[in-house]
Amino acid sequence: MEVALLGGTGDIGEGLALRFGRDTDHTVVVGSREAERGREAASEYTAALADRGVDATIEGAENDGAAAGAEVVVLAVPAYHLADTVESVDDVLGDTVLVSPAVGMQRDEGGLHYNPPGVGSVTALAAKAAPDDVPVVGAFHNLAAGRLGNLDADLGWDVPVVSDDSDAKTTVMGLADDVDGLRALDAGTLASAPEVESLTPLLINLAANNEGLHDLGVSFR
Amino acid sequence: MEVALLGGTGDIGEGLALRFGRDTDHTVVVGSREAERGREAASEYTAALADRGVDATIEGAENDGAAAGAEVVVLAVPAYHLADTVESVDDVLGDTVLVSPAVGMQRDEGGLHYNPPGVGSVTALAAKAAPDDVPVVGAFHNLAAGRLGNLDADLGWDVPVVSDDSDAKTTVMGLADDVDGLRALDAGTLASAPEVESLTPLLINLAANNEGLHDLGVSFR
Repeated sequence: MEVALLGGTGDIGEGLALRFGRDTDHTVVVGSREAERGREAASEYTAALADRGVDATIEGAENDGAAAGAEVVVLAVPAYHLADTVESVDDVLGDTVLVSPAVGMQRDEGGLHYNPPGVGSVTALAAKAAPDDVPVVGAFHNLAAGRLGNLDADLGWDVPVVSDDSDAKTTVMGLADDVDGLRALDAGTLASAPEVESLTPLLINLAANNEGLHDLGVSFR
Repeated sequence: MEVALLGGTGDIGEGLALRFGRDTDHTVVVGSREAERGREAASEYTAALADRGVDATIEGAENDGAAAGAEVVVLAVPAYHLADTVESVDDVLGDTVLVSPAVGMQRDEGGLHYNPPGVGSVTALAAKAAPDDVPVVGAFHNLAAGRLGNLDADLGWDVPVVSDDSDAKTTVMGLADDVDGLRALDAGTLASAPEVESLTPLLINLAANNEGLHDLGVSFR
């Protein structure tokens, strides 16, 4: 299938593009607000994979061009750009699953804290911004971009996935499971997105506070 | 040192008593609202350890008797009993570290959700209920009681620990690290307790939603 990564020039987008490109047969399209930046990033990712002997299909486009025709559209943008990004592509979303990995956080002297929007979670915000007939899935919230983008690193991470649409959830769980070192887990409905998103500031604080820990993800056992 | 487990007749209290009894040199005191129940539980735990060839010192007492003289007092009670339990022992807390493992949750059709009290977290509620000079540490929130109490089970779990008092935090991290299969991690100040407590409903939902997963804890990697 075709997977679009809107904001795919950023850290999480890069990591997902490289991992999807290496570990799956899906066509990856890197979206950006400027088509040229999307195409440049796609070329870089393709070259990085070619250096490892991987012949992957990674294309670049403007966000709405990337979203058009993709079965899965990942909103790999910061939480505060989420609603705008959905709005910029909503007229090209057909039979599409929207994936929201963003988390709202704020920093104080003790570290980062979960700071959800008024609707309860960033994933719920994506669902509110999306057209009614487009299912939204929360996933990939808890991946440390540095390690995700380092193809020499083994992950061993779990990916909790939430959605009110079980078919869409199954599609995204399959996509996550296709990546080496990721295991998708059903974390429930969109109402459980806050607990999943809350993990991200905890992971960042744990890495900051404990010697020897960096770029943490989570494994449930 | 002496570790009191108030409400130590419950599931989490039992698991902690057995693990502290087996893996540490600390004296464990099982507290209950009724002294007799505390003593009965202590005898059961002692016998269970003796069956495994472990000669552990586990005593039983009423909650205030257990708390008096203990260096660490664990509030192993449900969140809605927390403030009452602290109040029932506050005149015997001297040079004591109070530990809060409780989590507030509520259930809807999608599973369990984090439901913190108005002060932001159950750990913060414990701090509010405690005398001003008694440091409060949040720890042991994310341990599945069934596996904790099964001494045949290997854990391999992390224990995020939060406190505003770094000496108290160090004491409790040492206590957690003493248990085989637990690794204590510094998760920051009390302001980070919500992120730690939020993990518990997520763990329970993941075990409910995913075949083959039971009694989950967490490993950060």
